[in-house]
Amino acid sequence: MQAPADPSAGALVLFSGGQDSTTCLAWALARFARVETIGFAYGQRHAVELACRAPLLAALRRDFPHWAGALGDDHLVDLGVIGQLGDTALTDTIAIRMQDDGLPNTFVPGRNLLFLTVAAAVAYRRGLTVLVGGMCETDFSGYPDCRDDTMKAMQLALNLGMDRRFRLETPLMWLDKAATWALAESLGGPALVRRIVADTHTCYLGERGELHAWGHGCGTCPACELRRNGYARWRAATGGAPAA
Amino acid sequence: MQAPADPSAGALVLFSGGQDSTTCLAWALARFARVETIGFAYGQRHAVELACRAPLLAALRRDFPHWAGALGDDHLVDLGVIGQLGDTALTDTIAIRMQDDGLPNTFVPGRNLLFLTVAAAVAYRRGLTVLVGGMCETDFSGYPDCRDDTMKAMQLALNLGMDRRFRLETPLMWLDKAATWALAESLGGPALVRRIVADTHTCYLGERGELHAWGHGCGTCPACELRRNGYARWRAATGGAPAA
Repeated sequence: MQAPADPSAGALVLFSGGQDSTTCLAWALARFARVETIGFAYGQRHAVELACRAPLLAALRRDFPHWAGALGDDHLVDLGVIGQLGDTALTDTIAIRMQDDGLPNTFVPGRNLLFLTVAAAVAYRRGLTVLVGGMCETDFSGYPDCRDDTMKAMQLALNLGMDRRFRLETPLMWLDKAATWALAESLGGPALVRRIVADTHTCYLGERGELHAWGHGCGTCPACELRRNGYARWRAATGGAPAA
Repeated sequence: MQAPADPSAGALVLFSGGQDSTTCLAWALARFARVETIGFAYGQRHAVELACRAPLLAALRRDFPHWAGALGDDHLVDLGVIGQLGDTALTDTIAIRMQDDGLPNTFVPGRNLLFLTVAAAVAYRRGLTVLVGGMCETDFSGYPDCRDDTMKAMQLALNLGMDRRFRLETPLMWLDKAATWALAESLGGPALVRRIVADTHTCYLGERGELHAWGHGCGTCPACELRRNGYARWRAATGGAPAA
């Protein structure tokens, strides 16, 4: 059950600079009176994603003046500790492949648990009560720390461990990528779709390359494929969706 | 319900170099065939505690040869990120006091959740299935991330989020400090009590000072007081406990 609009609540959005978290940020801006953002630097291979964050925030402020008043501080937290937790394709230069256990080798065990714990500590200090993340089961690629069960258990652990009542909201949990594009358009119209296409980053390989209709990226890694196919399905379903 | 001895399982002990975690380490060494240790550096004021870790591990290997075979690698993880999560007395030089919300200002929101998440990621990589921590409700000083409810919720979140079955063991959860001294003696006799007295560190202020019967420390901060009073109660209850 997603949170209804609650103009009295403050939210902290896990904002990586990708398509999903940018859509989540718009979702939060449409609902809450105060919205802050948090990002994590951990030596990820697609650090280009992090570099998208500040320009995206500036563009949102500029192009969506009715949201600008709600958009508050951005927090960038150094989680270099993740690099100490074992080699994975997200921080190394090895190829992305499926492991014997069915998980992609980009899997950092419990990465989202770490993100959520740190985000909750920041929210605690900032007096924010809603945590918003782009975790999603629908395009489920084997990450157990994106599952709805995990999120609900984590809300319980955070609330007991910090003696607070956070709500953990995951507006994309049951959407496929086509529906995520549709959600962005419903929230911010063609202008938001254009910003997401041009300014967000999804590619696992960190490639920007030329600007395709669906955005930048190599176009062939699993993340690009999801994004590109989702865009195509959304455009096909809507017939005459706005050119992006 | 504490884990029975299970010589087929491997354990990772959250080992800070204090009395509680050293007792937990002995508890694990008495139960499991393979025991590794993990510590966290986060600019804590009592970094002297961390400095106790290596000599303690060496002393345990030397004085308890029947445990030496089980005692495996030690992992020291840099969690400097905690310093980014707001000012608290544990990392600053301000005085320890109670806040309006009843929590001591040494409270770093969710610190143990962070420790457990990182420990679980290391245990995942190392093939260890039991996590052992010294969290305790009995001398409850207002830390919600030490509560039994929190630990049980956290086990669920970790297991769902990492797709593993970790057991989270907290052998001190229902013991007071007198009982913790008694547990140490039951596990390792007077020799272990001597090591804990002389080589562990508990003092919030990071003072070593002279060696008292109960150990080093300022003797007056809340942590020293607990340790000192617990020692006195244990000695009184046992009448002629071994001189330490």
